[in-house]
Amino acid sequence: MRVLSGIQPSGKLHLGNYFSMMRRMIDYQAKSDLFAFIASYHAITTVEEGPVLRAGILDAAIDFLALGIDPTKSTFWVQSDVPEVAELAWILSTSITVSQLELAHSFKDKVAQGIVASAGLFTYPVLMAADILLFGAQRVPVGKDQKQHLEITRDIAQRFNHKYGEIFVIPEPDILKDTELVPGVDGRKMSKSYKNAIYFFADEKELKKSVMSIVTDSKGVQDSKDPDSSVLYQIYSLFLDQKGREELADKFRTPGTGYGDLKKALLAQILETFAPFRERRATLLADLDSVEDMLQQGARKARDAAIPFLERARDATGLGYRKK
Amino acid sequence: MRVLSGIQPSGKLHLGNYFSMMRRMIDYQAKSDLFAFIASYHAITTVEEGPVLRAGILDAAIDFLALGIDPTKSTFWVQSDVPEVAELAWILSTSITVSQLELAHSFKDKVAQGIVASAGLFTYPVLMAADILLFGAQRVPVGKDQKQHLEITRDIAQRFNHKYGEIFVIPEPDILKDTELVPGVDGRKMSKSYKNAIYFFADEKELKKSVMSIVTDSKGVQDSKDPDSSVLYQIYSLFLDQKGREELADKFRTPGTGYGDLKKALLAQILETFAPFRERRATLLADLDSVEDMLQQGARKARDAAIPFLERARDATGLGYRKK
Repeated sequence: MRVLSGIQPSGKLHLGNYFSMMRRMIDYQAKSDLFAFIASYHAITTVEEGPVLRAGILDAAIDFLALGIDPTKSTFWVQSDVPEVAELAWILSTSITVSQLELAHSFKDKVAQGIVASAGLFTYPVLMAADILLFGAQRVPVGKDQKQHLEITRDIAQRFNHKYGEIFVIPEPDILKDTELVPGVDGRKMSKSYKNAIYFFADEKELKKSVMSIVTDSKGVQDSKDPDSSVLYQIYSLFLDQKGREELADKFRTPGTGYGDLKKALLAQILETFAPFRERRATLLADLDSVEDMLQQGARKARDAAIPFLERARDATGLGYRKK
Repeated sequence: MRVLSGIQPSGKLHLGNYFSMMRRMIDYQAKSDLFAFIASYHAITTVEEGPVLRAGILDAAIDFLALGIDPTKSTFWVQSDVPEVAELAWILSTSITVSQLELAHSFKDKVAQGIVASAGLFTYPVLMAADILLFGAQRVPVGKDQKQHLEITRDIAQRFNHKYGEIFVIPEPDILKDTELVPGVDGRKMSKSYKNAIYFFADEKELKKSVMSIVTDSKGVQDSKDPDSSVLYQIYSLFLDQKGREELADKFRTPGTGYGDLKKALLAQILETFAPFRERRATLLADLDSVEDMLQQGARKARDAAIPFLERARDATGLGYRKK
């Protein structure tokens, strides 16, 4: 099964990214044909400084490679290294109406946040459809906020196939459940924009500051604490298996351990879990040439998968007018 | 000076196309660096049948080559053979707002004519901007109906340059004057959609029928006729120099020649003028391989001109993230 996932090159990764998106990707990498790309074309709808985007692309590549994306097992590339996707986006743009795009919540939300209502932001779902259809993806893991975009993709594919013949695979969404959401230090969903995120690649000092700021109730060392209502417990649990969670819950309930100690233990856990990734990240950072080479190889693999779909679309629409 | 002109692959050419667009292109070919392309990507916003578009592209190529586009003097290609334009269109789509596109008359007009209000039709001006900016065109000959699109192009280029540095050439329009418009057989502007066109590559029988249907007043053979109010005179004049026009006007004013005879003379004139083009067209039709070769060579020339602009845009936005 071919699974496709897009990665926003939007800066530092936090625990929410890791436990919801990243771990799913690694799961899919193990059991399916994973296509994962850094969404550079999408990023220019919000990032207007060249140097920022440039750094963001490389950082995202390094982070994902460090965390376990394996270019020998998956196809991993930078979106704009396969510009065929922009061509397909144009072709697909005739298979969706303006009124349908006007219904997209995401556009309205972003404009409400103060992002310029550019034509690119408006037609973002068309490019997303091209991302998916160009590679014949069968499944697309998305958050709830992207569910509507995936419906638009299915709609475009169906309309195109109806007009021109069975060319595109209709993808199925794999929607992240609410229970899989990671809470931030304030208990709300962990998100860069809420400023409640724990950035696991930050230096120890910053990481400590974040962990220490996790909200708790006012129970003291000698009080019994309730794990089920604790954000600290929820975050810590992400690192533990069933047995570890039960032991942690016991520690919460049994008087004698204060929140400060529990937070220190969590900090140690985070540092330990991410130590090998951190090390691999340092290695990659010191050898940008091989990172670029891996991305180039990924782009070639991606392009090989893309060309047959694009050619069929060009033939069907008449753009592929040549006899040979 | 670099001049750019797009050609709609929309079927048979009529005298209006020839005397307004075609002759200007041949003029520009003689005195400047003409870039002319068959607008296949634009065409899919209105043509939804693959075989129709495919035939339309080849027909347009053959017609324009027959009429004098010389691939050794100009750069002549099919738009979708240089897909870089679709990539640039995406990049530029972040430099124009939805509200600006909503002001475009052409979109509203086309939707009013019953064309589906697709995202592609809506963002057509962005692709047109990419057509122009990708090749550094300095001048763009357009009809009045395209004037607003050219303003959008200038606006996009200015906004992009403002954000990212001086990358694109700001093009100047060369707007067709009303006096250059060719009347159809009913006296209105000659247009496919008015069904008042004279198709000069039609067979003699059809051509005769069109010419004979040119409206006249009811003056008889022995009446003096007024050339200045005559559609027949206006159309006939297109083929004549100043001296020829004066002689024709005399013929109109002097009793003795009926409209039927004047129409027969016009028919003979059309056949004579287009005879060499017709012959060349038959030669090209019999050798589609060389037509395709010429288009491929044209696409290579066009791409060579395009790459530097595209690379600069990619670098400026950060999409060109690689060191080398």
